[in-house]
Amino acid sequence: METTTETLQVITPEQLLNQWQGHRALTRRVIEAFPEEALFNHTIGGMRPFADMVVELLAIAAPGIKEMMTGKTATFNEDIAHGNKKAKLLELWDQATEDINTYWPQIKPEQFQQPIKSFGQYEGTVWSSIFYFIDNEIHHRGQGYVYLRSLDIEPPFFYER
Amino acid sequence: METTTETLQVITPEQLLNQWQGHRALTRRVIEAFPEEALFNHTIGGMRPFADMVVELLAIAAPGIKEMMTGKTATFNEDIAHGNKKAKLLELWDQATEDINTYWPQIKPEQFQQPIKSFGQYEGTVWSSIFYFIDNEIHHRGQGYVYLRSLDIEPPFFYER
Repeated sequence: METTTETLQVITPEQLLNQWQGHRALTRRVIEAFPEEALFNHTIGGMRPFADMVVELLAIAAPGIKEMMTGKTATFNEDIAHGNKKAKLLELWDQATEDINTYWPQIKPEQFQQPIKSFGQYEGTVWSSIFYFIDNEIHHRGQGYVYLRSLDIEPPFFYER
Repeated sequence: METTTETLQVITPEQLLNQWQGHRALTRRVIEAFPEEALFNHTIGGMRPFADMVVELLAIAAPGIKEMMTGKTATFNEDIAHGNKKAKLLELWDQATEDINTYWPQIKPEQFQQPIKSFGQYEGTVWSSIFYFIDNEIHHRGQGYVYLRSLDIEPPFFYER
């Protein structure tokens, strides 16, 4: 594990936060692009509807960062009430955005290289766990793009954040 | 732009390389999971076959890193001969893996925060360009997962790198 100082940063904590929130803003636009019925029901090849993937992302993001901030084990809980309403899902998304922005600056710079068992079970470092959160979001959002295309809906541009 | 020293790294250059190569190993397994005919022809919603996305990833990865190493503007060239053969695509993938491993250590630590116009046209920093390469790969691979599911094929586990 790298513990030396006096190296230039590949990416700073603030840049990593902005990078993630840029992705999260794009994911929000993908949620918005779905017709409400399709968001909660459309599937391909036996996969989950996009709303269920969004619930997974919500269950991970703010609780996962809060765990890093507090050191208190987070519970992975996908039992998130949305009543099959897109507006509710977007409201929960925006709340998570605020929560992440609140928790993030309280993660100490030296924590990123430290080990963590995320949600009490996934072993890694703080940085590798955060990367997992982001990569998992990109992965599922990419799947959402296919769902939209199969519904003949143009997804937002991938490179717009 | 962050230029201070004496901060601990969120992620080191070597960790970022390993992170990417872990993703690239997973993408390789996704390519392998496709039946050859479907790899080059199966589509959903008017999108490209997965092989065309792989060609885009090949056009970006090694040339993009070489550009960072040399400072010489790279050409984005998707005219990559594969003859609709999965084995050829995998061979090109493995060559890119080696090339990236060769070029990467020659990127100087202080370069990551420096500006670059990637492929002569995409403005950002070295780190943001590398993140774009990785994120774009995750995005398209996620789409490949839907293609596989729609073909009734179980994709490799996302969390295995």
